[in-house]
Amino acid sequence: MTTTWVNGADEAGYGADNLPFGVFSPSGGGPRVGVRVGDHVLDLAGVLGDPEFTAGSLNPFMARGATAWRATHAKVAGTLARESGRPMAEPHLFPLDEVRLHAPFDVADYVDFYCSLEHASNVGRIFRPNDDPIKANWRHLPVAYHGRSGTVVPSGTDIVRPEGQRGSTEDKGPVFGPSTRLDVEAELGFVVGTPTSLGRAVPVEDFAEHVFGVVVVNDWSARDIQGWESAPLGPFLGKSFATSISPWVVPLDALAAARVAGREQDPEPLPYLRRVADWGLDIAVELRMNGEVVSRPPYASMYWTPDQMLAHLTSNGASLRTGDLYASGTISGPSPGQRGSLLELTWGGAEPLTLADGSTRTFLRDGDTVTIAASARGMGGGTITLGEVTGTVRPTSHQGV
Amino acid sequence: MTTTWVNGADEAGYGADNLPFGVFSPSGGGPRVGVRVGDHVLDLAGVLGDPEFTAGSLNPFMARGATAWRATHAKVAGTLARESGRPMAEPHLFPLDEVRLHAPFDVADYVDFYCSLEHASNVGRIFRPNDDPIKANWRHLPVAYHGRSGTVVPSGTDIVRPEGQRGSTEDKGPVFGPSTRLDVEAELGFVVGTPTSLGRAVPVEDFAEHVFGVVVVNDWSARDIQGWESAPLGPFLGKSFATSISPWVVPLDALAAARVAGREQDPEPLPYLRRVADWGLDIAVELRMNGEVVSRPPYASMYWTPDQMLAHLTSNGASLRTGDLYASGTISGPSPGQRGSLLELTWGGAEPLTLADGSTRTFLRDGDTVTIAASARGMGGGTITLGEVTGTVRPTSHQGV
Repeated sequence: MTTTWVNGADEAGYGADNLPFGVFSPSGGGPRVGVRVGDHVLDLAGVLGDPEFTAGSLNPFMARGATAWRATHAKVAGTLARESGRPMAEPHLFPLDEVRLHAPFDVADYVDFYCSLEHASNVGRIFRPNDDPIKANWRHLPVAYHGRSGTVVPSGTDIVRPEGQRGSTEDKGPVFGPSTRLDVEAELGFVVGTPTSLGRAVPVEDFAEHVFGVVVVNDWSARDIQGWESAPLGPFLGKSFATSISPWVVPLDALAAARVAGREQDPEPLPYLRRVADWGLDIAVELRMNGEVVSRPPYASMYWTPDQMLAHLTSNGASLRTGDLYASGTISGPSPGQRGSLLELTWGGAEPLTLADGSTRTFLRDGDTVTIAASARGMGGGTITLGEVTGTVRPTSHQGV
Repeated sequence: MTTTWVNGADEAGYGADNLPFGVFSPSGGGPRVGVRVGDHVLDLAGVLGDPEFTAGSLNPFMARGATAWRATHAKVAGTLARESGRPMAEPHLFPLDEVRLHAPFDVADYVDFYCSLEHASNVGRIFRPNDDPIKANWRHLPVAYHGRSGTVVPSGTDIVRPEGQRGSTEDKGPVFGPSTRLDVEAELGFVVGTPTSLGRAVPVEDFAEHVFGVVVVNDWSARDIQGWESAPLGPFLGKSFATSISPWVVPLDALAAARVAGREQDPEPLPYLRRVADWGLDIAVELRMNGEVVSRPPYASMYWTPDQMLAHLTSNGASLRTGDLYASGTISGPSPGQRGSLLELTWGGAEPLTLADGSTRTFLRDGDTVTIAASARGMGGGTITLGEVTGTVRPTSHQGV
């Protein structure tokens, strides 16, 4: 384990083995790229003397490619590990509580996958109780759809309860109003750095040359809107009102010790989806409502791995841009306490959750704060944190016309 | 009708009543914004002395808002209509065949609707012959999904036949390879200029304050890939390999004379979708294969109008960005010769088309060139053209691994 001279950083999971990248503004200054160390952020433009890091997003740096990412990561890690780096770095360390955090990157296209067998099974059983819960295609390809990149928001952004159409049960036609089944989805997101040109598929083995790092994602979902609108072209407004991401992008290299074999797949996938390296990730996820842990979804249980997702996404020749974000879909493990959405935790609202204050929940109430946190084993055997994504539900500001 | 001193421009449908905006590079120069007049393009930075028009996309201009669009359009129209404008403008006119055209704007989010009752009915009958072709939600809301904005390409870009998974009929599991059912979809696209902030719905009456103009769209579709992947989250790789748009964005104002009442809707839509102005558009569309007209879809037959689409898209509070593109979905009229896709024209491949050269088509062959053109009545009673979007199918460059 590489330790750092920054006080308490290693213990906090933000030591020299982690060093996630984000964008911050020091008080009175413009946005710039920084690396989180403990409860400080290191100003990269300052310590490295590279003006590219004064950009307001990670995109220019991510576009440089994997060789540049690794070199920068190693240089920063060295500076923070060696006592001799201290005089150079210390003037560029800002306490976190004195800076403002921004969205870490500009999202190009946003794709959401559906990679958890347990999540897909649970959803299938809840919505289509008389049908095979898993569709015929599911074990052959990682199912996915495009989401709205313009409404990906940074952690801490309030989530206004969306309005929308939902079917009415009384055969009177749909009604319009604030969603009554507002939900969360605990996911991880993969951030593309190196772009490709149109017509070029990215093989599974090139995954780490294109993906820069990982964020925690809350894919807020209005189940009533989604249920009514989705036939036959999939989710649209039930998802597009907001998707929250954590402020720090953890570089893929920092997750080296969390890599595990992907879950066994049966039937064997087609050749373009066959794994050639271990890109299962043993990442522990925690879903908290108003501070209370309500679920612990294990990322290692996912059926499809991120290298397979990327190979599939580009298998038709679709190009990648720097800033493309693709998320895993809801992470749900095999046990009830490992489900990553309220839809599953309350079985479609039929089995309310009881919180510590005695109140119950089926779906979200106005004022509820939802936080998703993730952590993993670091390269030196310690724990690294992927940080948190949080958001509070606010009441609809305009009622249906 | 306002006529122009530019030779032949009025007769060509690119006169002073039209003036669509695009981005071009004169030989030896960088990209800049221009307006098409006849077979020339007028360099706006040159004639207006405004450096904003040296941008490589329409986005900065579109972001200025409707007042600026109208003022610029009026100023340019005046210059091109009055003989006195000639000395000022003529040095900034470039023959089209001496410039290079670019993508007219940077696409932010791309949404594709499904607004033709005939298209939705045909597709339903072809894919679900034993079911109600129109889903329960269809007459209550304009169904839509997000597409991939990173693969929206300018007219003239070759379309490489995508590879992908398709279900096999022999119960042997899916196969991977070049699509065998490559199709087109003739659509119109609406380009957002004025952005909104998160949480604000755009009412139907504000449509023209946000939408800058219209392009012609070919939403290339691989039916075999789409059919296998779409359950339950909708189309993904069957669409994301390429979407082509025409080079010239026709300002909404230029279509004033093409506005007609929207098609009657039964049941009456919910209040947020009720029309308050005539935004049906009497635009004639032509679908050509290798130069031969195979269909004439009438845009006026669409069930949902573009003001309704925008109100729906934002009804959940989703924000708009400059450069958002939303397309109508395939335009198909009530008669067989008005269908906007090969899927419908050949009834799922069961009734091949015979072309003038005696060859037949179900879906596209390598080498086929597809062109979609559109035109409408101009403000002075003449015809204005929305231009064309064209693309040629190239063989898959890499075979399945």
